[in-house]
Amino acid sequence: MIKYKLTVQYLGTRYSGWQIQSDKRTIQGTIKDALLQLTGETVSVVGAGRTDSGVHALGQVAHIRLEKEMEAARLQRALNGILPWDIRMFSVRTAPPDFHAQKSAIRKRYLYRIYNGPVLSPLLSGRVHQVIHPLNFDAMSEAAGMIVGRHDFKGFAAAAAKVRDHHRTVLASRFVHRGRDVRYRIEADGFLHHMVRNIMGTLLQIGSGKRSASDMLRILESRDRRNAGPTARPEGLYLVKVWY
Amino acid sequence: MIKYKLTVQYLGTRYSGWQIQSDKRTIQGTIKDALLQLTGETVSVVGAGRTDSGVHALGQVAHIRLEKEMEAARLQRALNGILPWDIRMFSVRTAPPDFHAQKSAIRKRYLYRIYNGPVLSPLLSGRVHQVIHPLNFDAMSEAAGMIVGRHDFKGFAAAAAKVRDHHRTVLASRFVHRGRDVRYRIEADGFLHHMVRNIMGTLLQIGSGKRSASDMLRILESRDRRNAGPTARPEGLYLVKVWY
Repeated sequence: MIKYKLTVQYLGTRYSGWQIQSDKRTIQGTIKDALLQLTGETVSVVGAGRTDSGVHALGQVAHIRLEKEMEAARLQRALNGILPWDIRMFSVRTAPPDFHAQKSAIRKRYLYRIYNGPVLSPLLSGRVHQVIHPLNFDAMSEAAGMIVGRHDFKGFAAAAAKVRDHHRTVLASRFVHRGRDVRYRIEADGFLHHMVRNIMGTLLQIGSGKRSASDMLRILESRDRRNAGPTARPEGLYLVKVWY
Repeated sequence: MIKYKLTVQYLGTRYSGWQIQSDKRTIQGTIKDALLQLTGETVSVVGAGRTDSGVHALGQVAHIRLEKEMEAARLQRALNGILPWDIRMFSVRTAPPDFHAQKSAIRKRYLYRIYNGPVLSPLLSGRVHQVIHPLNFDAMSEAAGMIVGRHDFKGFAAAAAKVRDHHRTVLASRFVHRGRDVRYRIEADGFLHHMVRNIMGTLLQIGSGKRSASDMLRILESRDRRNAGPTARPEGLYLVKVWY
């Protein structure tokens, strides 16, 4: 058995998310099928994190184990030859036996893209979340900064999230905007289910004047999902990078 | 009758180019259909230039005339409500009666995007031309600069191009590259059919070491299409802007 680390880019638009579900087209399932076709082996594809339906990835990481060794560069080329155009093996490397794409991850970065204007370019369609009314970036930036540090993020996690400990350390949380192109970057040692999209849903309400920036702290303190904003749309979200 | 100037963005991937052709999905035809649906009028949509199948536009310009006046902002919103996601009215303005999208144009800018690397990101698929082997940018930049000025471009025009005068003035022709992302910008007072793609096909041969930069001048002098390189693929090409 030999282990490989796969760095995967995908456009999530046509997929029901990362995780295999019966009768649905998923990223994990499509990669598994490509591996079966290539090697004849039924391979388990373990991802660093499960992205939701419609969410994209610039640097998702997964690990696989193959019975028969194959040169990493050859495996990469062969998979890219089989996979559809919207899933690409950005890199393939052999990995030590104890490498685990999910458990070994120490940090992740997500990007959330917003187009803040009335007419969405066809080039950005499905790749950003469009907000027509002008957003208040000062308020959004102030609010974004409030969640940096170690906090209990239960208030921003999907209500059904099945974890015991909701503490996570956010290392960066900030907006950059150039004209109508708005980018929010968040880095943490781990993320709860829907955490980025729930944070963004709240930040969008703050940017729209429906809430004040200080609500971020109140939601953290309350540990109650019902106090946060709605889950923001998936098409603006990108899993950018996973650190090990 | 009232005239409007439309600035149109589109992703050319799903279309057989700008110009209406029977039984084919075209940009011009799709806009004409949307106008018929909206106003009940059969409207002639006159574009600044005909883009080929698969070519994109960030700022194509067209003019139309409507029998019944409609406020420009309302016309824009209504058309964007009817048009498919990959064609957008970026702006709609009323125009003077003598405005002609094609004949009044004094300058146009095109962009050609190349991804120079082995693995094409799903985000760039269909939006750039991928070249796997490393390109020689010094040679390409030198060659690109040679066509600036007023020249007879017959050697770079489609053989079947039906114009008498092949003289055009190229105002800018240069490469910018940042890592694997390569952008070529060309501005001229007008373009012959396939001119940008034939120039690019030749520049790609120069960048691949198959020709020397000085071939650009020889092709101009020869006025013979057979001396130039192949027509470069459409998916890297964008009509960026039209000046009036």
